[in-house]
Amino acid sequence: MNGRMVARQLGLVAILIGTAMAFSLPWGMDLLGGEWAYERDGLMGLAGAMAVCFLVGAVLRRCGRRAEGQLFRREAMAIVGLSWVMATALGGLPYLLSGTHRTAEHRMGVIDAMFEAQSGFSTTGATVLTDLEDPSLVPRTILFWRSTTHFLGGLGIVVLFVAILGQGSAGKALMRAEMVGPSRASPQARMQQTAWILCLVYFSLNALLAFMLWLLGLGAFDALCHAFGTMATGGFSTYNASIGHFATVPGLNGLLIEMTIVLFMFIAGTSFILLYLSAFRGPKRLFGDAEWRVYAGLLVGATLAVTAYGLYSGDFAEAEATAGERTARPGSPPPAPGGIDATTAAAGEGVEPATGRLPLGRALRYSSFQVVSIMTTTGFVTTDTDRWHSFARGLLLVLMFIGGCAGSTGGGLKVIRYVLLVKILGLEVERAFHPSVVRPLRLGDTVLEEQELRRTVPLYFAVITLIFLVAWLFTITVEPDRTWTAAGLSPAHKLLDSASAVAATLNNIGPGLGVVGAAQNYTHFSPPTKLLFTGLMMLGRLEVFVILALFSPRFWRR
Amino acid sequence: MNGRMVARQLGLVAILIGTAMAFSLPWGMDLLGGEWAYERDGLMGLAGAMAVCFLVGAVLRRCGRRAEGQLFRREAMAIVGLSWVMATALGGLPYLLSGTHRTAEHRMGVIDAMFEAQSGFSTTGATVLTDLEDPSLVPRTILFWRSTTHFLGGLGIVVLFVAILGQGSAGKALMRAEMVGPSRASPQARMQQTAWILCLVYFSLNALLAFMLWLLGLGAFDALCHAFGTMATGGFSTYNASIGHFATVPGLNGLLIEMTIVLFMFIAGTSFILLYLSAFRGPKRLFGDAEWRVYAGLLVGATLAVTAYGLYSGDFAEAEATAGERTARPGSPPPAPGGIDATTAAAGEGVEPATGRLPLGRALRYSSFQVVSIMTTTGFVTTDTDRWHSFARGLLLVLMFIGGCAGSTGGGLKVIRYVLLVKILGLEVERAFHPSVVRPLRLGDTVLEEQELRRTVPLYFAVITLIFLVAWLFTITVEPDRTWTAAGLSPAHKLLDSASAVAATLNNIGPGLGVVGAAQNYTHFSPPTKLLFTGLMMLGRLEVFVILALFSPRFWRR
Repeated sequence: MNGRMVARQLGLVAILIGTAMAFSLPWGMDLLGGEWAYERDGLMGLAGAMAVCFLVGAVLRRCGRRAEGQLFRREAMAIVGLSWVMATALGGLPYLLSGTHRTAEHRMGVIDAMFEAQSGFSTTGATVLTDLEDPSLVPRTILFWRSTTHFLGGLGIVVLFVAILGQGSAGKALMRAEMVGPSRASPQARMQQTAWILCLVYFSLNALLAFMLWLLGLGAFDALCHAFGTMATGGFSTYNASIGHFATVPGLNGLLIEMTIVLFMFIAGTSFILLYLSAFRGPKRLFGDAEWRVYAGLLVGATLAVTAYGLYSGDFAEAEATAGERTARPGSPPPAPGGIDATTAAAGEGVEPATGRLPLGRALRYSSFQVVSIMTTTGFVTTDTDRWHSFARGLLLVLMFIGGCAGSTGGGLKVIRYVLLVKILGLEVERAFHPSVVRPLRLGDTVLEEQELRRTVPLYFAVITLIFLVAWLFTITVEPDRTWTAAGLSPAHKLLDSASAVAATLNNIGPGLGVVGAAQNYTHFSPPTKLLFTGLMMLGRLEVFVILALFSPRFWRR
Repeated sequence: MNGRMVARQLGLVAILIGTAMAFSLPWGMDLLGGEWAYERDGLMGLAGAMAVCFLVGAVLRRCGRRAEGQLFRREAMAIVGLSWVMATALGGLPYLLSGTHRTAEHRMGVIDAMFEAQSGFSTTGATVLTDLEDPSLVPRTILFWRSTTHFLGGLGIVVLFVAILGQGSAGKALMRAEMVGPSRASPQARMQQTAWILCLVYFSLNALLAFMLWLLGLGAFDALCHAFGTMATGGFSTYNASIGHFATVPGLNGLLIEMTIVLFMFIAGTSFILLYLSAFRGPKRLFGDAEWRVYAGLLVGATLAVTAYGLYSGDFAEAEATAGERTARPGSPPPAPGGIDATTAAAGEGVEPATGRLPLGRALRYSSFQVVSIMTTTGFVTTDTDRWHSFARGLLLVLMFIGGCAGSTGGGLKVIRYVLLVKILGLEVERAFHPSVVRPLRLGDTVLEEQELRRTVPLYFAVITLIFLVAWLFTITVEPDRTWTAAGLSPAHKLLDSASAVAATLNNIGPGLGVVGAAQNYTHFSPPTKLLFTGLMMLGRLEVFVILALFSPRFWRR
C-alpha cells in the first residue's frame, strides 16, 4: 500500500470539503435572508468545521508530500473508502459545533452528526432532524450545508466510480462505461477526460434544475437545496413536508414543481454516460440501451399499478376523511408535526381544486411522484405513503431494492444487475441439464466477454441479502419498543418497520415504512442502531466490496 | 430426451404411491380403532385413489416397455421433476374422493387437495385442514395417508437426491456425498449401493422413533404418524395442538415426548451419509464436519438467545395471564379452536407442575422445541410463537432461510451454502484489490476443486431472494384483506404475514407468523395463492433448478 499517495489524495478531499463549507456561509448573513440572532451559532459552527477541514487537509498533504509511484487499484479503493469515512467525520462537525437541535429538547450528539453527514454524502436522505422550519433549532447555514453534502456525495459517486467501479472488466460491463475521449489517448488520459465530462454533466443538470425551480417561484435557497437533493438522488428537503410543502403555498404551482422534480429524479437515475452520449449522438442511444428500457418500463409499470390499486382501495381519497376509517395499520401515525411531515394538507384541503377533484389525475400525480422518488432512491415525498394500502407499500419496499441505473447517482442494487441475473439464471438452468453446452452472456446484441460477471452479479445479490438479514436481526434485538411508542406508533409493527429501515438505509433511499415512514424520521432510534444505519448507508453507497476490503488484513499489507 | 425411459420410471413411482396407500387402509377398519360410520368415505376414497394410481402406473409402464439406452442427467432431472408433479396429483386424490372437509362447512377442492399433497411430499407440513380431531371431517385413514406422504417425500429426497443433486461435481461437494460401496465397483453400482444404505438409515430411524414414542405411551397410529412427520422434517400432526397436545393428556410425560422429538428432528436435519459414516466409523466424523458444527452451533445459539430474550420479555409466562397485557401484536389470535392450535393449555394450567413452575426449565423446553422445529424445517409446535416478542419471531423467520444440512430431509437453503458463501465472499473481496491472486476454496482442511461452486452457491441465494420477492408481491396483490378478517386477525399485518407464508412454504417449514402462525393454518387463502404456495413448496424442495428446467424448451428437445 502506497500510504503517502493515499494521504495526499485524502488531504485534497479534506480541502475540498472545507471549501464547499464556505458556500454555506452566505446564507446565514442578513443580506441572503438569514436572521443574525439564529444564524450566529450556525456560522460559528461552520467556520470552526472549515478550520478543522483545512488543518486536516494541510497535515495530510504534508504527510504525502514525497509521494511517488503510481495509483494502483488497491490505492484507489483505499482513497475512496477512507475519503468516505473521513467525510463522515468532517461533514458532521458543523452539526456538532453549531449545536443544532434534532428535537426541541435535544441537541445532536456525535452519532447523530455522523448519521446526518453519512446520510448526506451517501445521498440517502434519512434524517434525525424533526423540525427543519424552526431556525432556532436548525440554522439556515446548516440546512444549506446539509443539502451541500448531497451535492458533494453525488459528485463523488459520479467521478470516483469511473476510477473504481468502472475499472476492471466486470465494472466496465456493468456500467458500460465507454471512455468518451479521443481513442488515441492513453487509457488513463481518457479516464480523466470521462471524469471531467461527467462532472460537467452533473454540474449542468444541477444548475438547470435550480434555475427551473427558481423560475417556478422558489427562492434561490430552496431552489439550490432541492436541486442538490434531486440530482444526487438524495432527498434532504428544507421543509418538514418535503416537496409536498410547495402545494400548500398560495401562488406556487405545486403540480408543476412536483412534475419537474419527477422528471429530474428520473434523469438522475439514468446513467450519466448514457445521458452524455444520447445528448450528442441522438436519443436513439437511450432507447437502445437494455438497462434503460427496463428502468423506464419498471417506473411506468409500478406507477400504473399503484394508481390502479390505489384508486380501487381509496388510497388517494382525502387524507383527513380516511384517517379514521382505514382498517389497515391501526398504529398509523397522527398527522404529527415534525419529521419529513407528509402533507396531509396537500393531499386534503382544496388548495388546488383543479387537480384535487379529478381522482385519476390526483392518483397519477401522487403515485408517479412516490414511485419515481423511491425507485430512484431519492426519498422526497408529497404524501404519507404509510396511509396507503398494503399492496402499494409492499411494492415500494421491493422497488427500494431495485434502484437506478449503473453509472447514475441512484442507489439500490441497480437495474442492470437484475437484467444480468435473469440472463445468468437462464444460462445456469441450461447448464444443469447440458453441462457441456457453454453459451456466452449477452446484453442486447453485445456479447459480454467478462466471465467474472457470472460470479460477481449473483454474489452481490447474495451479499446484500445476507447484510440485510444480519442488520435486521441486529435492529430487532437492540431496538426497544420505546422507539415506537415515542413516535406515537404501536411496536406491533417492529419487524416490518425495522426491515424497511434497513432497506431504506442500505439502498440509500431515506424514508421507509411506519416508524421511518414518510411522516416520520430516524430521531428516536437508539445510538447503536443509528451507528449501524450509518454503516449500512456507506456499505450500500460504495457497493460493499470497498468497505469490506478496508477490514481485510491483506489489504493493508505492503 | 429418452421419453420411454422416463415414462417407465414414472410408472414405477405411480405404483409405489398406490402401494403406499394400501398401508393407510387398515386404520379405517374396526380392529385398528377406526369407526366404520366415519371411515367408510375414507376407505372408499383411498381405494379409488389406489385404483387410479395402479392404472396410471400400468399405462406408463406399458408406454415405456420398449425403453432402451442409458439414463443421462437430463432424464434423471425429468424423472424427479415429473414424479413430483404426478405425486401431487395422485396424492391429492384420496382427499378429493373421500370428501374430506377442510372446515366444518367446506369440503376440500382440487387446489386444496393439491396443496395438502404437495405439502406432504415436500415435507412442508402446511395444512388447509382446520380440525384434525373430528373423524366426521377428516377420517383416520386420510390422516394416516397424510402422514404417509411425508414418509414418501422424505424417502424421495434421500434416495433421488443421490441420483440428482449428488451428481455433478458441485452437487458432490455440497453434499460431500462419498459413495459408501466398495471402491472397485463401478460408479453407478456404488451410487445404487449408497441409495440403498440411505434407505436403510431412513427406515431404521423412522422405526426407532415410532417404537420409542410407543414406549412413551402413544398409540401405534400416533406413534407412526409423528415418527413420519419428524424424520421427514414434515410437521403434519394428528392433533390440532400438534405436539403440544401430549402435554395435556394425563398419564403421558409431555416433556419426555417433546425432548425425544427434538432429538430426532435434530438427527433428521443432519446429513444421512454423515449419520451412517459416524455410526460405523465413530462420532469423530460428526464433530469433524464443518457444516454439522455450524448447524449444531446455530441451533444451540438460537435456543439460548430465544430463552434469554424470552425470559427478559416474559414470553414464557402463563399464556392466559399475558394474552391481555401484551402490547405487541394487537391482532394476536384468540385461543381459537381449529388449525394447528397452540397449546395454551400446555403453556398454561398446571398439567405438569414440576416443570411448569421453573421459569428457566420451562423457557428452555419451549424455546428449544420451537427453534429446532423451525430451523430443521419440521414445523411441529408446542406453543403459540405468535405470542412471543418481536425478537424471537424475527429470529425464527431468519432461521427458516437457513434450514438443515445438505443430504438430510431438511429444507431451507442448507447450512453448507451459508458456510461456502462467507468463504466465497472473502475470496472475492481479496480479488477486488488483488485481481491476480487466485486462492482455492477450502472447507476445513479440504480444498474444493469445484470451480462452479463459486458461481452456483451465490446464484442459489440470488434466485431464492428473487423468487421470494416475486411470490411476496403476488401474494399481497392477490390476497384480499378478507383472508385476515376471516381468521379473526387484523389485515394490518398483511405484509409481514405474507412474507412469512412465502418463507414457510418456499423453505418447506409449514407454520409462519400471524395468519399462518402456530395457531393458524392456510385454509383462508384464496385459490390462486394456494396454487402459488403449492408451486413454491415444490420449487424449494427440488432446489429450483429441476423445476425451472421443466419450463425450458431446450430441455425437451431431442
